[in-house]
Amino acid sequence: MAVTLKEVAERAGVSRSAVSRTFTDGASVSEKMRRKVQKAADDLGYSPNALASSLTTGRTKLIGLVSNNFHNPIFLEVFDLFTKGLQDRGLRPLLVNLSSEIDPESSVRMMRQYSVDGVVVASSTLPPGFSKAFRDAGVPVVHAFGRSASTPQVHVVGIDNVECGRMAARELVSRDYSHVAFLGGPEAATSTQDRYSGFMSEMGAHSKVKTSYSFADAYSFDAGRREMMRLLRQNPAQAYFCGDDVLSIGALSAIQDSKLTCPKDIGIIGLNDMEMSRWENINLTTIHQPIRQIVSSSIELMAGMLDEPDRLPEARIFPCSVVERGTLRPRSD
Amino acid sequence: MAVTLKEVAERAGVSRSAVSRTFTDGASVSEKMRRKVQKAADDLGYSPNALASSLTTGRTKLIGLVSNNFHNPIFLEVFDLFTKGLQDRGLRPLLVNLSSEIDPESSVRMMRQYSVDGVVVASSTLPPGFSKAFRDAGVPVVHAFGRSASTPQVHVVGIDNVECGRMAARELVSRDYSHVAFLGGPEAATSTQDRYSGFMSEMGAHSKVKTSYSFADAYSFDAGRREMMRLLRQNPAQAYFCGDDVLSIGALSAIQDSKLTCPKDIGIIGLNDMEMSRWENINLTTIHQPIRQIVSSSIELMAGMLDEPDRLPEARIFPCSVVERGTLRPRSD
Repeated sequence: MAVTLKEVAERAGVSRSAVSRTFTDGASVSEKMRRKVQKAADDLGYSPNALASSLTTGRTKLIGLVSNNFHNPIFLEVFDLFTKGLQDRGLRPLLVNLSSEIDPESSVRMMRQYSVDGVVVASSTLPPGFSKAFRDAGVPVVHAFGRSASTPQVHVVGIDNVECGRMAARELVSRDYSHVAFLGGPEAATSTQDRYSGFMSEMGAHSKVKTSYSFADAYSFDAGRREMMRLLRQNPAQAYFCGDDVLSIGALSAIQDSKLTCPKDIGIIGLNDMEMSRWENINLTTIHQPIRQIVSSSIELMAGMLDEPDRLPEARIFPCSVVERGTLRPRSD
Repeated sequence: MAVTLKEVAERAGVSRSAVSRTFTDGASVSEKMRRKVQKAADDLGYSPNALASSLTTGRTKLIGLVSNNFHNPIFLEVFDLFTKGLQDRGLRPLLVNLSSEIDPESSVRMMRQYSVDGVVVASSTLPPGFSKAFRDAGVPVVHAFGRSASTPQVHVVGIDNVECGRMAARELVSRDYSHVAFLGGPEAATSTQDRYSGFMSEMGAHSKVKTSYSFADAYSFDAGRREMMRLLRQNPAQAYFCGDDVLSIGALSAIQDSKLTCPKDIGIIGLNDMEMSRWENINLTTIHQPIRQIVSSSIELMAGMLDEPDRLPEARIFPCSVVERGTLRPRSD
């Protein structure tokens, strides 16, 4: 037999309203009262039924956390920050793995079946149309690591990838390389396209520097390694802007395996500054993406939409910066 | 206004029962019928309400996936396999981050509030009592990567960590090291304790080989690196069995930084065989833990418990094997 709120109130020697307030997010109750009620609830094995309360409020507090790349270590950091941040607000992260499924229609269907209150798309590769499909279906959505836009159609939180491409190009130029290249992620990814266009446009102003480019199949170690192996068999550049850190680590592996050294023979700059790039046996020079702020800002926007579903979509774009470590030769100045 | 099942049936030109069967897991319906109904449902924006159906069935299909270490890259693989496997069975993985909270009582409370149908504890560090707390509260639970036992109190799927410790010791002995050591994970973790006891008991049979041991604070890169740095300042062993792969990679970093080389100066053998240990710039000799089988077996047991809650707990223990790569010197035989 289920324990009732009344029984908890009697055992704790408090009013029913006090019990109710203890189990209502955001309701006012003293710490002492909360402890007293919680103890009585624990003794009796009482727990407020989220399912029943969902029917009253029409809310499940479930937030779909959608990702399509479980082979990029940065997502472990992203999941860590998202799950902690959502839990702190009493929301529940439902992890959705789109590795083998990126059709927006069936994703929307899946999210509806899951009865989520909202969806956070955490991906730099899915196009804006993907997250827009949720909005069109009436599901509150935030696209974290999405493409920035001046008039976004959904909330977007991320970085200016075009500017990052320029930043990487300027960094390589400042080190007097005579042949530089972009080793991008998958060509269809918005982040790849933007990083490419920024890189090439900046290099356009440096006509004396030979510039080339190519793309890997995925943001993964294997893809970066494979593409660098291919490049090394031809006429490799002196330095590469790799689409992200995991591609960079794959490329570094190919360089080492070919008995070349980095940065002496070939320089690498990545993007993300994930935990692993700080590891001393990787020590990657990279562009820092402020993941912590992107995640907390995404959660803030999601929480805001749950209260105020008609808020106009906004883009929150955070600045990036170069982190100097060991994979580029020193600046010439 | 919500679209009804009747409207979908009319639009698709089929019976209501056919629509109902299309949206009921496991119900029989032809592929052609399913497509017809799905199209009508999509056109009308109909989706079966999981919340309402939960009240009828008493099931939410939510499975809590509980982890307490988001700094070990192996968990990205674990999450990938769990989310895919659960999704394939129509279950929904609710990710729970216990990084800052490992009190079983409040975890049970959290899972109840989340209205999960069951909980998979994915951790080699939480004690058996942790998962038992769920069982005692009537929540179906499977402990993946848990401690093996001849009479388990909950379903446990994993490896025999004592045997792994022995295996690592035999491997080091076969390479004629005269001083070997165990660099374990956190001392309170069941996996650390078992790997330690297996390692030391096997080394007990080799009294001519000097044997020592110490522990790191966590299964993390930083902890492994810190502990190896400390060891290098004293009288380091010739070869280490590191508690897991991420500790090994941290230890390798410390070795490189001290201008020593592996395996020439110091040998390392890890445990897990996570994706990254195969990366050519890591190339770690390690003990393979069959993660794929552990995850699929855990999901199978969980699904079984949802149908048959009173099934007796069982332990499924999978064999491990040494994967020879580049961080131990060759065997002497």
